[in-house]
This record gives sequence, C-alpha cells and structure tokens, in this order.
Amino acid sequence: MNVEKRAKSVDLSHHLSELSKARPVSPLKGLMKYFSQPGILSLAGGLPSPAYFPVSDISANVLVPESFGLSPTEASTSLSWLWKLFSNHNANKDKTHSVTIPKYPAVEGDINLATALQYGQASAQSQLQDFLKLFISEVYRPAFEDWTVLIDTGNTDGWSRAVLTLCNPGEGVLCEEWTYPSAMASMIPFNIKPVAVAMDGLGMKSDALENLLSQWDPVLRQMPRPHVMYIVPVGQNPSGSTMSVARKKEIYDICVKYDVIIVEDDPYYFLQLGTYTFKDDRSPGATSSGKPSADESKRYISTLTPSFLNFDYEGRVIRLDTFSKTIAPGSRLGWFTCNPRFAERLERQGETTSQAPCGFGQALITKILMHWTYDGYIRWLRGLRTEYQQRRNFFVDCLAEEFHLHAVTTTAGVWEGCVVYQASSKVKKNTSITDKYSARDCTMFSFVPPTAGMFVWLRLHLDQHPSFVPGDEDTLETKLWTKLAENKVLFGPGWMFAANGMVEGSENNDSGHFRISFSNGEFADLKKAVTIFGRVIREFFQEGDL
Amino acid sequence: MNVEKRAKSVDLSHHLSELSKARPVSPLKGLMKYFSQPGILSLAGGLPSPAYFPVSDISANVLVPESFGLSPTEASTSLSWLWKLFSNHNANKDKTHSVTIPKYPAVEGDINLATALQYGQASAQSQLQDFLKLFISEVYRPAFEDWTVLIDTGNTDGWSRAVLTLCNPGEGVLCEEWTYPSAMASMIPFNIKPVAVAMDGLGMKSDALENLLSQWDPVLRQMPRPHVMYIVPVGQNPSGSTMSVARKKEIYDICVKYDVIIVEDDPYYFLQLGTYTFKDDRSPGATSSGKPSADESKRYISTLTPSFLNFDYEGRVIRLDTFSKTIAPGSRLGWFTCNPRFAERLERQGETTSQAPCGFGQALITKILMHWTYDGYIRWLRGLRTEYQQRRNFFVDCLAEEFHLHAVTTTAGVWEGCVVYQASSKVKKNTSITDKYSARDCTMFSFVPPTAGMFVWLRLHLDQHPSFVPGDEDTLETKLWTKLAENKVLFGPGWMFAANGMVEGSENNDSGHFRISFSNGEFADLKKAVTIFGRVIREFFQEGDL
Repeated sequence: MNVEKRAKSVDLSHHLSELSKARPVSPLKGLMKYFSQPGILSLAGGLPSPAYFPVSDISANVLVPESFGLSPTEASTSLSWLWKLFSNHNANKDKTHSVTIPKYPAVEGDINLATALQYGQASAQSQLQDFLKLFISEVYRPAFEDWTVLIDTGNTDGWSRAVLTLCNPGEGVLCEEWTYPSAMASMIPFNIKPVAVAMDGLGMKSDALENLLSQWDPVLRQMPRPHVMYIVPVGQNPSGSTMSVARKKEIYDICVKYDVIIVEDDPYYFLQLGTYTFKDDRSPGATSSGKPSADESKRYISTLTPSFLNFDYEGRVIRLDTFSKTIAPGSRLGWFTCNPRFAERLERQGETTSQAPCGFGQALITKILMHWTYDGYIRWLRGLRTEYQQRRNFFVDCLAEEFHLHAVTTTAGVWEGCVVYQASSKVKKNTSITDKYSARDCTMFSFVPPTAGMFVWLRLHLDQHPSFVPGDEDTLETKLWTKLAENKVLFGPGWMFAANGMVEGSENNDSGHFRISFSNGEFADLKKAVTIFGRVIREFFQEGDL
Repeated sequence: MNVEKRAKSVDLSHHLSELSKARPVSPLKGLMKYFSQPGILSLAGGLPSPAYFPVSDISANVLVPESFGLSPTEASTSLSWLWKLFSNHNANKDKTHSVTIPKYPAVEGDINLATALQYGQASAQSQLQDFLKLFISEVYRPAFEDWTVLIDTGNTDGWSRAVLTLCNPGEGVLCEEWTYPSAMASMIPFNIKPVAVAMDGLGMKSDALENLLSQWDPVLRQMPRPHVMYIVPVGQNPSGSTMSVARKKEIYDICVKYDVIIVEDDPYYFLQLGTYTFKDDRSPGATSSGKPSADESKRYISTLTPSFLNFDYEGRVIRLDTFSKTIAPGSRLGWFTCNPRFAERLERQGETTSQAPCGFGQALITKILMHWTYDGYIRWLRGLRTEYQQRRNFFVDCLAEEFHLHAVTTTAGVWEGCVVYQASSKVKKNTSITDKYSARDCTMFSFVPPTAGMFVWLRLHLDQHPSFVPGDEDTLETKLWTKLAENKVLFGPGWMFAANGMVEGSENNDSGHFRISFSNGEFADLKKAVTIFGRVIREFFQEGDL
C-alpha cells in the first residue's frame, strides 16, 4: 500500500525532549572518517584482544522452521492434547539443525565471536541489520523512504528510551485506557503521565482521541496537549483487541492533525489468531507441515493487519519490535524502526544506558535467522501463530465447557462492536458434594475471545454479587483473586492495567477484571485452572446467600 | 581485614533521588507469597511456553583456565612475539572443553534454556547469584554484612542506574579530574554535573577532596555539596593510576565524614600489572602453567589491592563489576554489590529499562564459571593479568626503543610521587632519508607506565613546540592527533577525558594528552604504531623550524 507515496520523513525534531537535546552528538563524530581508513592501527579504544575471549566457538541445535504445523488440529481436551504437547505437537518432533559460530570468520562477513563479543555498534551487527531491513521492507513496508533500524534490548528498553527521547517531565502520553503497566512504570517516576483514551472492541477509539485533543485545555489539565502516543494495536495488552485497518488510518490522520508521535509497541504482531468459533462449529483444517517458500511468505504477510508504519508517510511512527515472543524473552533483543533523526538520538541514549545488546544472543539469533532465511523465519512465525491459535481455542473451549456462555453483541464500552460471551453457571447434571452451591442464573463474568496475543481479558460482573455495593469493586476483585490464589490459580489482577483511573465515557470502574494468559501452561493445567476457577467463582457469587 | 567489624549496613536511603523515591515498589509485592506456592497454576504472566523457543540446546568450546601462562616471558619485539601471538601464547593452545546447556534440565538446578530464556528475575539466575556471592566474599570481603548482589548489563548500565537512583537534576558528582567520558555522558544530560577533584599518581587526592567538601559553598557553586562520588580506583581511565590502600582509607573516611556515597567503577581490578621496569632490568620469570588451586587463589587474592568494599563498614559503597574485561565486552553482563536498600531501588529501575541481562549470555557465562569453578576462574584471571603485563611491558619497551626516556620523580601534578618518563628524540645512528628531521633535545611527551589497566596516558609537552603560544594547547593537540590519524595511527584524544575543564591547583590545561590502548593490537602493529608515532611527533616538534 502507499508505496507510490513513499517520501523522505519530515523533520519532527521539535518533538525531542530537553534531555535528548542536551545529549551531545557522539564525541568522535568529526573523527570517524579516520576510524574507517583501511589499514588503520587503532590504539584509541579500550578493547580487549579477542584472543582473551575464553570461548572458541558456540553451537546450537535449532528447530527447523516447519517444526509446528499450520492447521489447528481438532482434539479433545484430554489425553490427545497432552500427547501432542509431549510429542512436540507433530511429526517434526525435535528435528533440528546444528549451527556454529566460530571465534574467527572462515570467510569475511561470516558471523564470528571476535566481532560479536567485542564492543559493538549499538545499531546492530551488520548481518542482523541486513536481515531486519529485508524483513521490515517485506513485512511492514513503511510509507516513508528513509526509515532506519536500531536494535535495543527489547521493547521495555525501547519504550523507556523512546519516552525519555520525546517527553519532558510534566507532559502526558496518550495511551489506551487499559494498558501495559510496565510501560507506565517507565515514565511515571519522571513525572510523565498517562492520558487514557477510551477503547472499544478495536482498541483506542478515534472519536475519543479526536475529542480529547481538540478540546484539550492545558490549564484545566495542568499539562500541555500530549504529543506522544503509546499504543499496543495488535493483541492489545490486556484487552486482547486488535485494531482494524480503517481505525489505524483514522488514528494516524488524527496524529498528523495534532502532530502526535505514535510509538507502536507491537510484540504480538505475529500472534494474529483470527476469530474464535465454538469447537463444534470449527471446520477441521487440512494437516500440512508446509515448507518455507517465497510465495507462501508473501501470501501470509498479505493476511496480516498492516503496521502503523504502512500508513506513515511522514515518519512519525516509532515502531518497537522484539524477539521476546517469537524467539524467547531471554533474547533481550528487539529493534526500533523510525526516522533517522529519532534513531540517532535513541542510539546516543542507548550508548549510555543498555549499550549494544548481548553479543552471545545477538550472534546466535542472527545465525538462526540466516540459517532459516527470511522465508524460513516467516514459516516459523506461521507455525507459532497456529500454536497460539490452538491454545486460545483450547482455553476458550475450556471456559465453554465450564460455564454457560451466552453471546451478545455490545454497543458500548470497551467491547463496543464485539460479540461478547457472558458466562453464567452451568446447571450440572451430577452436582457433586464438593460443588455444593447450586447454580445462580446471573452473569458472573464476560469476555471477548481475543483475536491476537496471549491473553483473555475477563470482566467480572461484580454488580451481580449478592453483597455488592457500588464503589466496592476493588474489594470484591481482590477477594476473588485471593480466593483463586489460595486455590492455587493465579490470574493477572485487573487493577494493574488501568492507565489512569476514570476516563470520561468509560465503564472501567463498574467492574473488576482479570487478565488470563493461555500462552504457557500445559493444556491439562489450563483445563484444571478453569475447573478450579469455575468452582471458586460459583462459590464466590453464592457467598452473599450464606 | 575488618572482618571483626562486619555489621549491617546503616540506613542511607536519604540519598535516594526524587526519581527513585517516585518509582513504586513492585506492584505484585503483596501477592508474591502466592506465586511461590508449590503446585501453583500461574496464568498471570505473559510468558511464552519454552516449547516455542527454537533452540534445543547450546554448546560452547571453552578455553581451559590455565590457557595463559603466569610468567611474562621475555622476548624480542619481532618474530617471537608474533609467533607467540599466533600460536596462542603457550603450549595450551586451543585446549578447550565443551559445555552444553540443554533446553530442559536433566537434574533440578541444572542451568537450562527453558529458564534462562524465559522472562527472568532482574537479580540474576540463581546459579550465577551463588557464584557471585562466593566470589565477592572471597575476593572483596565487604566490611558490612548484608551486602546484596544484583546483575546488570555491564558498568555503563550500572552507573547509569546508580546515578539516577542517587542524584537529582542540579546536583554534582565528585569524580577524578580526568575520567571516563561515557560515565559523564550518562549524567550530564540530566543536569547532573561532574565536580572534578585533583589527582596525583595515586588517583584522586584525599586532601583535595577534604578541602573541596569542607569549603563547599552552595551559593558560589550553585549546587548543594555533592553526596555521590564516581571513581575508577584501579587502572584509572585514562591515567592508568592505581590507588593505594592508605589513600582508599583516607577517601573512605572523608566520605563517611561528609556522607558521600562511593560508586566504585572497577573494570580493571584484575588487570593489576605491577611496576614497569626496563627490559634489561627484568628478571626472567619461571615458566609455569600453574593449575587452579585453592591455595594459589588465596595467595593471589592477597596480592590484590582491596576494593573500597573492604573498608565499607557502613554500606555506602556501590561497587560495579563487569565481565567485559575478563570474559568479553559483548557479554553485557555485570553486577552491583551494595546495601539491600539501594539494591532494591536499582532493581526496580532496571525492570523498566534494560531488564534482566540476555539469557543466552547469562546461561553461557554461568555455565563457563561453574565448569571452571571459582579457583579455575581465579586462574583464568591470573593468566589474563600476565597477558596484559606482557602487553604493557612490550608497549613501553617499544617507546623506550623509539625515544630517549629520562626518568624523573615528580612532586606535583597528576603524577605527583611517580617516576615519570620524559621522552625526547633519540639521536639515530643511521638517520635514513625518510626520517629527515634531526633530533631536537626537548621533551616531547611524558608518561608514567601504568600499574594496572589497558592504557598509557601520554602528556604532550606542547610548550616545547616551536610555535607554541599559551592557550594554544587544544589546537596543537588536535593538529598532532590528525597528523597521526593521517598516518594511520589512532590514539584516544585527551580532551575527551577532561571531567570539568579547569580545576583549582590542577595543571590539566597546560598540555594536551593522548590515551593509548595496548590491549588489543597485535604486537607487530603496536611496534609499527610506535614507530609511526616517533616519526610523526619528531616532525611535529620540528615544524616551527621550517
């Protein structure tokens, strides 16, 4: 899209914070031409000799890109899932190839430890730069020409650097009304405050954003109109919502109008799971292990919702990507895609904080990517997506087995426009003695099955609780959370994710929430957790009757 | 030492910055007791399943701890050095052992990728914590009881977190008059300013520190009396000086008196090289490859100058250690040793910036250390020390061959108390046609052979330059630097290391400086660089005559 419009980014350096402007350019800037002379003898840096790195080589056995199948296989919730889990899900079980990184390159340009473990450019080892540039131009296709790649140690580092590069103390950052608490914790101590924007089923509402910005009163709000947005548009954390193309365009246009920089934190981009359907309504997918191919990569990429970068003809998006969800969280490796002026400032800031990411990790991940090739990595991502789809389906299936789910389309609130499942107790055919409370015909909680990401966001209908008094939501939420924890099930407490308390027109405060992750547990444990949850929440909603 | 006095750290939390105080405690703090229940089903975190980490195992071939000999072998500057370099310095050439880290542990407690590559505690994987605790108690022996270990991504991250945890904008940080520029770049953009303290041959002067603090006038200085010190006491960067025990005690006592927190940045601690003697005066050491042993570890540790921690009966030292110089810079792994209150705040700050260090690197380094054992690691460090000793000796030998060195003991300035070598041109027996300038009998530069670290710090006697005019030092320094660079030799420009311009009683500004690193170049290249330097500086000091 927009490829015709590709142009150089506009100069947005008026957004740089005082801190960022105070940071000097690289002190060696004027001297760099000398450093790159061929045959130069540099005794300038404090570099140890690679002869003193105690590692002669490192190797890894790496799963093949097609390790995970592409069709969510239908299965019962019992042994066949377990079997699949322990048998590594398919016939490619443990099929690996070995990769090795020697200390010294056999051929110039090979990844090697002498370079990877030395002090390095904060922008990335060159092979990783090359891979990421290819990846970004194929997958995200930014609408501006001079986009720049800069690695970081993951999106926490990325956001922390972005917010200090763009914001001054006393300013506010636009964000979704429910958002990632760690992102807020990066900025709040610097007196940079979240400014919550109301959400619906597609994430941040464009009309709410327009209203907020057009009616901004700096005196009343005690801060200037925000010029930075933090947004998780795919598999939103915690709500699980995913923004549509039309909504993204609206949000982008409003940001152009009010000169807002968009920081797109998108760790779940490759976990786009599609719509949930009940187990009985699912068509069995064909079993395919699909080898990597250029055609399949192209076709798959075309099914993904575009990044904000794809509409960004001005270069006002700073996109944050990470390998945490696609390789492993311990990678501590991610990257910025943004205009070159911001990239230069972000790089300087990184040089005095996290520096270049770990050379062991960077070398290994780069080697894996080069071994897989671009198409192999896309195939790996497709397999992962399918795995999370199975997990999402399985977890919601468990809820559907444990509770009576009633589908309604809502017209207001954070799930506006979505099919919401309202959960009430199922009348058990054989009520056991341990499950002594009979069903109450109330909605205990509701949720929208997520279309991306790792989380189910439950809204508790605490107003249905027999002893409910308005204003009492937090107490009841904590009471239920604690009961669950005492029964050995931990959910994410909803209060952690509230950006800024009350938002005009939002229904945040009429209910508690839980964020439940289906990304990690073994299937038997997910099932067990839902069963315990069922018993505990039924007891909880009965308590007032005792 | 001081073991009898070991006591709990005193409460120094009044030093915490407003930023640090504003940072909330961990939001899950009150709930953590539930997370550690046995058999808990946690669906709270956004953790991917380890089944989705594409790496089945990683392996490394690791040099044996005794890879480098313990006696600096005498050798000429020519082929035998080269031979030694390429033959990996001794008979243990390439003697390696293989270590492997599987995805899942065979035995509980084994290092494994399922844990190492997951989101992790910012404080360190438990095996690394255990190793570091042993290491600190054997090597540094802190004088306070409740010292705490917290890992970081190296000393740049460590210092950047320390300064923001302790200092408010508008405050100053005590540092040596010549210091590490990157450390200054971490704080200056936050309007936290270096306050330079005069140095002598042992580093920061205690009388200068006492005078500065006792006479501090907040109005005149436009800042409160500094309460934080940044100091590189061993192999000081750039001067190469190392602080004596007596000086450290004096500095520590002054810091107690004026309630100053000492941040001890000590990357070169294990590169304590001893005094340089001319080649002909050196006694040939016995050739020994010395296997690791507990006795040898103890004996060696007793020869090292103690850390500030060893005098720190109050817990006012934050020590920064790093694997950058002992394993590899790309490790991006280091650690704080400090009191538990500071450690908690530093950990919270890390959680929203660099997070836990890379799991690949952390697992590999931990595995190497456990494979080597504590005594093996000490043996490795001893070998490294010997290597750097050889490099220091070789480089100074080259200078002694290229220049006439005249030893004088100075009684003032940054080298007070040291034997300083003043370098003038050697009258060549066979003056070649390319070396057309005859010798001038002036001191062109002077230096003190470093007793630790990686650097020779050259003071240029620019006042001896024929066209010298006072105030012209920077121009002349840059002119010489550029001439060298054009002749393909790069030194570190001295101006980069000036903490704060003019310091009372300091002679900083009467001369230019170069910092020359002998840590990385091949020996033939070091020799070649010195030869080029000799030709260029002779020409330079002749120029006024042309």
